[in-house]
Amino acid sequence: MARPKEFDPDDALDKAMHLFWAKGYHDTSIRDLVARTGVNYYGLYEVFDNKHGLFLASLDRYRDRVTARVIEELNRPGPAKPAIRRAFDRLFGLLQTSDGRIGCMMCNTAVELAPHDDDAAKRVQGHMAQLRDAFESRLEEGQRTGDIDEAADPRALAEFLTTTAYSIGLLLRTGCSDAHIKRHLDTALSAI
Amino acid sequence: MARPKEFDPDDALDKAMHLFWAKGYHDTSIRDLVARTGVNYYGLYEVFDNKHGLFLASLDRYRDRVTARVIEELNRPGPAKPAIRRAFDRLFGLLQTSDGRIGCMMCNTAVELAPHDDDAAKRVQGHMAQLRDAFESRLEEGQRTGDIDEAADPRALAEFLTTTAYSIGLLLRTGCSDAHIKRHLDTALSAI
Repeated sequence: MARPKEFDPDDALDKAMHLFWAKGYHDTSIRDLVARTGVNYYGLYEVFDNKHGLFLASLDRYRDRVTARVIEELNRPGPAKPAIRRAFDRLFGLLQTSDGRIGCMMCNTAVELAPHDDDAAKRVQGHMAQLRDAFESRLEEGQRTGDIDEAADPRALAEFLTTTAYSIGLLLRTGCSDAHIKRHLDTALSAI
Repeated sequence: MARPKEFDPDDALDKAMHLFWAKGYHDTSIRDLVARTGVNYYGLYEVFDNKHGLFLASLDRYRDRVTARVIEELNRPGPAKPAIRRAFDRLFGLLQTSDGRIGCMMCNTAVELAPHDDDAAKRVQGHMAQLRDAFESRLEEGQRTGDIDEAADPRALAEFLTTTAYSIGLLLRTGCSDAHIKRHLDTALSAI
Protein backbone atom coordinates (compact mmCIF):
# COMPACT_ATOMS: atom_id res chain seq x y z
CA MET A 1 0.00 0.00 0.00
CA ALA A 2 1.36 3.45 -0.94
CA ARG A 3 1.70 5.87 1.97
CA PRO A 4 -1.36 8.21 1.96
CA LYS A 5 0.55 11.49 2.11
CA GLU A 6 2.43 10.81 -1.13
CA PHE A 7 0.11 12.98 -3.23
CA ASP A 8 -0.90 16.61 -3.62
CA PRO A 9 -4.41 17.02 -2.13
CA ASP A 10 -4.92 20.21 -4.11
CA ASP A 11 -4.24 18.52 -7.43
CA ALA A 12 -6.34 15.49 -6.46
CA LEU A 13 -9.27 17.78 -5.60
CA ASP A 14 -9.07 19.48 -9.01
CA LYS A 15 -9.22 16.09 -10.71
CA ALA A 16 -12.04 14.81 -8.50
CA MET A 17 -13.99 18.02 -9.15
CA HIS A 18 -13.73 17.52 -12.92
CA LEU A 19 -14.91 13.93 -12.62
CA PHE A 20 -17.93 14.78 -10.41
CA TRP A 21 -18.74 17.72 -12.71
CA ALA A 22 -18.85 15.38 -15.73
CA LYS A 23 -20.50 12.30 -14.18
CA GLY A 24 -22.46 13.62 -11.22
CA TYR A 25 -22.40 12.17 -7.73
CA HIS A 26 -24.21 8.84 -7.92
CA ASP A 27 -22.62 7.65 -11.16
CA THR A 28 -19.06 8.36 -9.96
CA SER A 29 -17.59 5.34 -8.19
CA ILE A 30 -14.68 5.21 -5.78
CA ARG A 31 -12.86 3.22 -8.45
CA ASP A 32 -13.42 6.12 -10.92
CA LEU A 33 -12.07 8.62 -8.38
CA VAL A 34 -8.97 6.54 -7.70
CA ALA A 35 -8.36 6.15 -11.46
CA ARG A 36 -8.83 9.86 -12.18
CA THR A 37 -6.82 11.24 -9.26
CA GLY A 38 -4.13 8.54 -9.22
CA VAL A 39 -4.53 8.48 -5.43
CA ASN A 40 -5.63 5.35 -3.60
CA TYR A 41 -8.78 5.01 -1.52
CA TYR A 42 -6.94 5.42 1.82
CA GLY A 43 -5.17 8.58 0.70
CA LEU A 44 -8.34 10.25 -0.58
CA TYR A 45 -10.39 9.38 2.48
CA GLU A 46 -7.71 10.39 4.95
CA VAL A 47 -8.00 13.94 3.61
CA PHE A 48 -11.67 14.16 2.55
CA ASP A 49 -13.37 11.63 4.92
CA ASN A 50 -15.52 9.90 2.29
CA LYS A 51 -17.03 10.26 -1.19
CA HIS A 52 -19.56 12.79 0.07
CA GLY A 53 -16.86 14.91 1.72
CA LEU A 54 -14.83 14.86 -1.47
CA PHE A 55 -17.92 15.91 -3.44
CA LEU A 56 -18.65 18.86 -1.14
CA ALA A 57 -15.01 19.98 -1.33
CA SER A 58 -15.32 19.72 -5.12
CA LEU A 59 -18.31 22.09 -5.09
CA ASP A 60 -16.24 24.61 -3.15
CA ARG A 61 -13.38 24.17 -5.59
CA TYR A 62 -15.78 24.80 -8.52
CA ARG A 63 -16.60 28.20 -7.04
CA ASP A 64 -12.89 29.05 -6.96
CA ARG A 65 -12.19 27.76 -10.45
CA VAL A 66 -15.30 28.92 -12.34
CA THR A 67 -17.59 31.27 -10.43
CA ALA A 68 -14.82 33.52 -9.09
CA ARG A 69 -13.58 34.13 -12.65
CA VAL A 70 -17.06 34.95 -13.95
CA ILE A 71 -17.53 37.47 -11.14
CA GLU A 72 -14.07 38.92 -11.82
CA GLU A 73 -15.12 39.50 -15.45
CA LEU A 74 -18.45 40.99 -14.33
CA ASN A 75 -16.68 43.46 -12.06
CA ARG A 76 -14.25 44.91 -14.59
CA PRO A 77 -14.69 48.67 -14.95
CA GLY A 78 -17.04 50.03 -17.62
CA PRO A 79 -20.76 50.07 -18.44
CA ALA A 80 -22.92 47.31 -16.91
CA LYS A 81 -24.57 45.76 -19.97
CA PRO A 82 -21.37 44.88 -21.86
CA ALA A 83 -19.80 43.68 -18.57
CA ILE A 84 -22.75 41.33 -18.02
CA ARG A 85 -22.43 40.01 -21.56
CA ARG A 86 -18.69 39.46 -21.12
CA ALA A 87 -19.33 37.61 -17.86
CA PHE A 88 -21.69 35.22 -19.71
CA ASP A 89 -19.16 34.75 -22.52
CA ARG A 90 -16.52 33.96 -19.91
CA LEU A 91 -18.84 31.46 -18.23
CA PHE A 92 -19.55 29.81 -21.58
CA GLY A 93 -15.81 29.47 -22.19
CA LEU A 94 -15.15 28.03 -18.72
CA LEU A 95 -17.89 25.43 -19.24
CA GLN A 96 -16.08 24.01 -22.29
CA THR A 97 -13.91 21.34 -20.69
CA SER A 98 -11.85 18.44 -21.98
CA ASP A 99 -14.66 16.17 -20.69
CA GLY A 100 -17.06 17.61 -23.29
CA ARG A 101 -20.37 19.47 -22.89
CA ILE A 102 -20.87 18.69 -19.23
CA GLY A 103 -22.69 21.87 -18.23
CA CYS A 104 -22.44 23.71 -14.91
CA MET A 105 -21.55 21.70 -11.81
CA MET A 106 -23.92 23.73 -9.61
CA CYS A 107 -26.87 23.26 -12.00
CA ASN A 108 -26.04 19.55 -12.22
CA THR A 109 -25.92 19.30 -8.42
CA ALA A 110 -29.17 21.25 -8.02
CA VAL A 111 -30.94 18.68 -10.18
CA GLU A 112 -29.23 15.55 -8.94
CA LEU A 113 -28.93 16.18 -5.21
CA ALA A 114 -30.67 19.31 -3.90
CA PRO A 115 -34.02 17.69 -2.99
CA HIS A 116 -32.38 14.88 -1.00
CA ASP A 117 -29.03 16.19 0.27
CA ASP A 118 -29.11 19.18 2.60
CA ASP A 119 -25.35 19.83 2.47
CA ALA A 120 -25.34 19.91 -1.32
CA ALA A 121 -28.54 21.98 -1.43
CA LYS A 122 -27.03 24.58 0.94
CA ARG A 123 -23.96 24.89 -1.27
CA VAL A 124 -26.08 25.35 -4.41
CA GLN A 125 -28.26 27.95 -2.69
CA GLY A 126 -25.13 29.75 -1.41
CA HIS A 127 -23.73 29.75 -4.93
CA MET A 128 -26.98 31.14 -6.38
CA ALA A 129 -26.98 33.89 -3.74
CA GLN A 130 -23.34 34.76 -4.48
CA LEU A 131 -24.01 35.09 -8.23
CA ARG A 132 -27.27 37.00 -7.63
CA ASP A 133 -25.54 39.47 -5.29
CA ALA A 134 -22.78 40.06 -7.83
CA PHE A 135 -25.29 40.72 -10.62
CA GLU A 136 -27.42 42.89 -8.34
CA SER A 137 -24.47 45.14 -7.35
CA ARG A 138 -23.49 45.53 -11.00
CA LEU A 139 -27.07 46.38 -12.02
CA GLU A 140 -27.40 48.93 -9.20
CA GLU A 141 -24.13 50.52 -10.26
CA GLY A 142 -25.52 50.58 -13.83
CA GLN A 143 -28.62 52.36 -12.57
CA ARG A 144 -26.44 54.99 -10.85
CA THR A 145 -24.45 55.61 -14.03
CA GLY A 146 -27.57 55.56 -16.24
CA ASP A 147 -26.64 52.38 -18.14
CA ILE A 148 -29.55 50.36 -16.70
CA ASP A 149 -33.18 51.53 -16.64
CA GLU A 150 -33.74 53.09 -13.21
CA ALA A 151 -37.31 51.72 -13.10
CA ALA A 152 -35.99 48.13 -13.24
CA ASP A 153 -35.96 45.91 -10.14
CA PRO A 154 -32.28 44.97 -9.73
CA ARG A 155 -33.02 42.04 -7.41
CA ALA A 156 -35.53 40.44 -9.82
CA LEU A 157 -33.18 41.00 -12.79
CA ALA A 158 -30.23 39.59 -10.82
CA GLU A 159 -32.23 36.45 -10.00
CA PHE A 160 -33.18 36.15 -13.66
CA LEU A 161 -29.53 36.46 -14.75
CA THR A 162 -28.50 33.83 -12.20
CA THR A 163 -31.07 31.40 -13.58
CA THR A 164 -29.88 32.28 -17.08
CA ALA A 165 -26.35 31.31 -16.05
CA TYR A 166 -27.62 27.93 -14.85
CA SER A 167 -29.58 27.56 -18.10
CA ILE A 168 -26.38 27.82 -20.14
CA GLY A 169 -25.12 24.74 -18.32
CA LEU A 170 -28.41 22.97 -18.92
CA LEU A 171 -28.37 23.70 -22.66
CA LEU A 172 -24.76 22.57 -22.95
CA ARG A 173 -25.52 19.33 -21.14
CA THR A 174 -28.54 18.69 -23.37
CA GLY A 175 -26.24 18.86 -26.39
CA CYS A 176 -27.57 22.17 -27.79
CA SER A 177 -25.32 23.92 -30.32
CA ASP A 178 -23.20 26.98 -29.59
CA ALA A 179 -25.46 28.96 -31.95
CA HIS A 180 -28.55 27.85 -29.98
CA ILE A 181 -26.94 28.93 -26.70
CA LYS A 182 -25.90 32.26 -28.18
CA ARG A 183 -29.48 32.91 -29.38
CA HIS A 184 -30.73 32.06 -25.88
CA LEU A 185 -28.30 34.54 -24.33
CA ASP A 186 -29.25 37.28 -26.81
CA THR A 187 -32.95 36.87 -25.97
CA ALA A 188 -32.37 36.63 -22.22
CA LEU A 189 -30.13 39.71 -22.13
CA SER A 190 -32.76 41.70 -24.07
CA ALA A 191 -34.69 41.68 -20.75
CA ILE A 192 -32.14 44.01 -19.11
CA MET B 1 -43.94 -15.92 -6.59
CA ALA B 2 -46.94 -13.89 -7.82
CA ARG B 3 -47.87 -14.45 -11.44
CA PRO B 4 -46.41 -11.53 -13.51
CA LYS B 5 -49.63 -10.61 -15.32
CA GLU B 6 -51.52 -9.90 -12.10
CA PHE B 7 -51.00 -6.14 -12.33
CA ASP B 8 -52.01 -3.21 -14.50
CA PRO B 9 -48.93 -2.15 -16.56
CA ASP B 10 -50.46 1.27 -17.15
CA ASP B 11 -50.84 1.97 -13.44
CA ALA B 12 -47.37 0.55 -12.70
CA LEU B 13 -45.86 2.85 -15.33
CA ASP B 14 -47.51 5.91 -13.77
CA LYS B 15 -46.04 4.97 -10.39
CA ALA B 16 -42.59 4.21 -11.80
CA MET B 17 -42.62 7.54 -13.67
CA HIS B 18 -43.31 9.45 -10.46
CA LEU B 19 -40.49 7.66 -8.67
CA PHE B 20 -37.93 8.27 -11.45
CA TRP B 21 -39.12 11.89 -11.70
CA ALA B 22 -38.46 12.41 -7.98
CA LYS B 23 -35.25 10.39 -7.54
CA GLY B 24 -33.68 10.29 -10.99
CA TYR B 25 -32.33 7.21 -12.71
CA HIS B 26 -29.20 6.19 -10.82
CA ASP B 27 -30.59 6.71 -7.33
CA THR B 28 -33.74 4.65 -8.00
CA SER B 29 -33.17 0.99 -7.17
CA ILE B 30 -35.11 -2.03 -8.36
CA ARG B 31 -36.20 -2.44 -4.75
CA ASP B 32 -37.60 1.14 -4.79
CA LEU B 33 -39.50 0.41 -8.03
CA VAL B 34 -40.98 -2.80 -6.65
CA ALA B 35 -42.04 -1.00 -3.45
CA ARG B 36 -43.61 1.94 -5.30
CA THR B 37 -45.43 -0.03 -7.99
CA GLY B 38 -46.39 -3.02 -5.84
CA VAL B 39 -45.28 -5.23 -8.73
CA ASN B 40 -42.47 -7.73 -8.38
CA TYR B 41 -39.22 -7.70 -10.35
CA TYR B 42 -40.33 -10.43 -12.78
CA GLY B 43 -43.61 -8.70 -13.57
CA LEU B 44 -41.99 -5.31 -14.25
CA TYR B 45 -39.24 -6.75 -16.42
CA GLU B 46 -41.53 -8.99 -18.42
CA VAL B 47 -43.28 -5.85 -19.66
CA PHE B 48 -40.46 -3.25 -19.68
CA ASP B 49 -37.33 -5.44 -20.22
CA ASN B 50 -35.16 -3.80 -17.56
CA LYS B 51 -34.73 -0.67 -15.44
CA HIS B 52 -33.59 1.34 -18.46
CA GLY B 53 -36.60 0.26 -20.52
CA LEU B 54 -38.91 1.23 -17.68
CA PHE B 55 -37.17 4.61 -17.43
CA LEU B 56 -37.55 5.34 -21.17
CA ALA B 57 -41.23 4.35 -21.02
CA SER B 58 -41.57 6.72 -18.04
CA LEU B 59 -40.18 9.60 -20.11
CA ASP B 60 -42.82 8.91 -22.77
CA ARG B 61 -45.49 8.76 -20.10
CA TYR B 62 -44.33 12.14 -18.72
CA ARG B 63 -45.01 13.70 -22.13
CA ASP B 64 -48.57 12.35 -22.01
CA ARG B 65 -49.19 13.40 -18.42
CA VAL B 66 -47.47 16.80 -18.31
CA THR B 67 -46.31 18.17 -21.66
CA ALA B 68 -49.52 17.33 -23.55
CA ARG B 69 -51.54 19.32 -21.00
CA VAL B 70 -49.24 22.34 -21.19
CA ILE B 71 -49.55 22.36 -24.98
CA GLU B 72 -53.34 21.97 -24.72
CA GLU B 73 -53.42 25.09 -22.52
CA LEU B 74 -51.10 26.94 -24.93
CA ASN B 75 -53.38 26.17 -27.86
CA ARG B 76 -56.63 27.44 -26.36
CA PRO B 77 -58.19 30.17 -28.53
CA GLY B 78 -57.36 33.82 -27.79
CA PRO B 79 -54.37 36.17 -27.90
CA ALA B 80 -50.90 34.59 -27.77
CA LYS B 81 -49.31 36.36 -24.79
CA PRO B 82 -51.96 35.42 -22.20
CA ALA B 83 -52.08 31.89 -23.64
CA ILE B 84 -48.30 31.54 -23.15
CA ARG B 85 -48.61 32.81 -19.59
CA ARG B 86 -51.44 30.35 -18.88
CA ALA B 87 -49.35 27.51 -20.30
CA PHE B 88 -46.54 28.36 -17.85
CA ASP B 89 -48.99 28.59 -14.97
CA ARG B 90 -50.36 25.17 -15.94
CA LEU B 91 -46.82 23.76 -16.09
CA PHE B 92 -46.07 25.20 -12.67
CA GLY B 93 -49.21 23.52 -11.28
CA LEU B 94 -48.38 20.15 -12.89
CA LEU B 95 -44.87 20.25 -11.38
CA GLN B 96 -46.31 20.41 -7.85
CA THR B 97 -46.54 16.72 -6.99
CA SER B 98 -47.11 14.75 -3.81
CA ASP B 99 -43.37 13.95 -3.92
CA GLY B 100 -42.52 17.62 -3.30
CA ARG B 101 -40.56 20.13 -5.39
CA ILE B 102 -39.05 17.61 -7.78
CA GLY B 103 -38.88 19.82 -10.86
CA CYS B 104 -39.34 18.74 -14.48
CA MET B 105 -38.52 15.14 -15.40
CA MET B 106 -37.08 16.17 -18.79
CA CYS B 107 -34.80 18.82 -17.24
CA ASN B 108 -33.73 16.29 -14.60
CA THR B 109 -32.97 13.71 -17.30
CA ALA B 110 -31.08 16.23 -19.45
CA VAL B 111 -28.74 16.89 -16.55
CA GLU B 112 -28.43 13.37 -15.20
CA LEU B 113 -28.26 11.27 -18.36
CA ALA B 114 -28.08 13.21 -21.63
CA PRO B 115 -24.26 13.31 -21.97
CA HIS B 116 -23.90 9.55 -21.40
CA ASP B 117 -27.15 7.91 -22.54
CA ASP B 118 -28.13 8.32 -26.19
CA ASP B 119 -31.66 6.95 -25.77
CA ALA B 120 -32.42 9.35 -22.94
CA ALA B 121 -30.74 12.27 -24.79
CA LYS B 122 -32.86 11.63 -27.90
CA ARG B 123 -36.03 11.69 -25.83
CA VAL B 124 -35.04 14.97 -24.15
CA GLN B 125 -34.15 16.53 -27.49
CA GLY B 126 -37.45 15.31 -28.98
CA HIS B 127 -39.30 16.81 -26.04
CA MET B 128 -37.50 20.14 -26.43
CA ALA B 129 -38.34 20.20 -30.16
CA GLN B 130 -42.00 19.40 -29.43
CA LEU B 131 -42.31 22.26 -26.93
CA ARG B 132 -40.37 24.65 -29.18
CA ASP B 133 -42.60 23.84 -32.17
CA ALA B 134 -45.73 24.43 -30.10
CA PHE B 135 -44.43 27.81 -28.86
CA GLU B 136 -43.27 28.76 -32.36
CA SER B 137 -46.68 28.06 -33.95
CA ARG B 138 -48.41 30.08 -31.24
CA LEU B 139 -45.98 32.99 -31.69
CA GLU B 140 -46.41 32.96 -35.47
CA GLU B 141 -50.18 32.97 -35.03
CA GLY B 142 -49.71 35.92 -32.64
CA GLN B 143 -47.69 37.74 -35.29
CA ARG B 144 -50.51 37.20 -37.82
CA THR B 145 -53.12 38.58 -35.40
CA GLY B 146 -50.88 41.47 -34.29
CA ASP B 147 -50.45 40.26 -30.69
CA ILE B 148 -46.71 39.55 -31.09
CA ASP B 149 -44.19 42.02 -32.56
CA GLU B 150 -43.83 41.10 -36.22
CA ALA B 151 -40.09 41.95 -36.14
CA ALA B 152 -39.48 39.20 -33.55
CA ASP B 153 -37.82 35.89 -34.51
CA PRO B 154 -40.42 33.26 -33.52
CA ARG B 155 -37.90 30.39 -33.60
CA ALA B 156 -35.45 32.16 -31.24
CA LEU B 157 -38.28 33.19 -28.90
CA ALA B 158 -39.72 29.66 -28.95
CA GLU B 159 -36.33 28.22 -28.00
CA PHE B 160 -36.06 30.78 -25.20
CA LEU B 161 -39.53 29.86 -23.88
CA THR B 162 -38.63 26.16 -23.98
CA THR B 163 -35.51 26.81 -21.91
CA THR B 164 -37.62 28.96 -19.58
CA ALA B 165 -39.97 25.97 -19.08
CA TYR B 166 -37.00 23.81 -18.13
CA SER B 167 -35.75 26.58 -15.81
CA ILE B 168 -39.00 26.43 -13.83
CA GLY B 169 -38.21 22.80 -13.05
CA LEU B 170 -34.66 23.71 -12.10
CA LEU B 171 -35.77 26.48 -9.71
CA LEU B 172 -38.34 24.18 -8.10
CA ARG B 173 -35.75 21.46 -7.60
CA THR B 174 -33.31 23.95 -6.09
CA GLY B 175 -35.93 24.82 -3.47
CA CYS B 176 -36.67 28.36 -4.72
CA SER B 177 -39.93 29.87 -3.46
CA ASP B 178 -43.09 30.23 -5.54
CA ALA B 179 -42.60 34.03 -5.42
CA HIS B 180 -39.05 33.65 -6.79
CA ILE B 181 -40.31 31.48 -9.66
CA LYS B 182 -43.14 33.91 -10.40
CA ARG B 183 -40.62 36.80 -10.58
CA HIS B 184 -38.48 34.74 -12.95
CA LEU B 185 -41.47 34.08 -15.21
CA ASP B 186 -42.47 37.76 -15.20
CA THR B 187 -38.97 38.80 -16.30
CA ALA B 188 -38.63 36.01 -18.89
CA LEU B 189 -42.02 36.75 -20.44
CA SER B 190 -41.12 40.44 -20.70
CA ALA B 191 -38.85 39.33 -23.58
CA ILE B 192 -41.84 38.47 -25.79
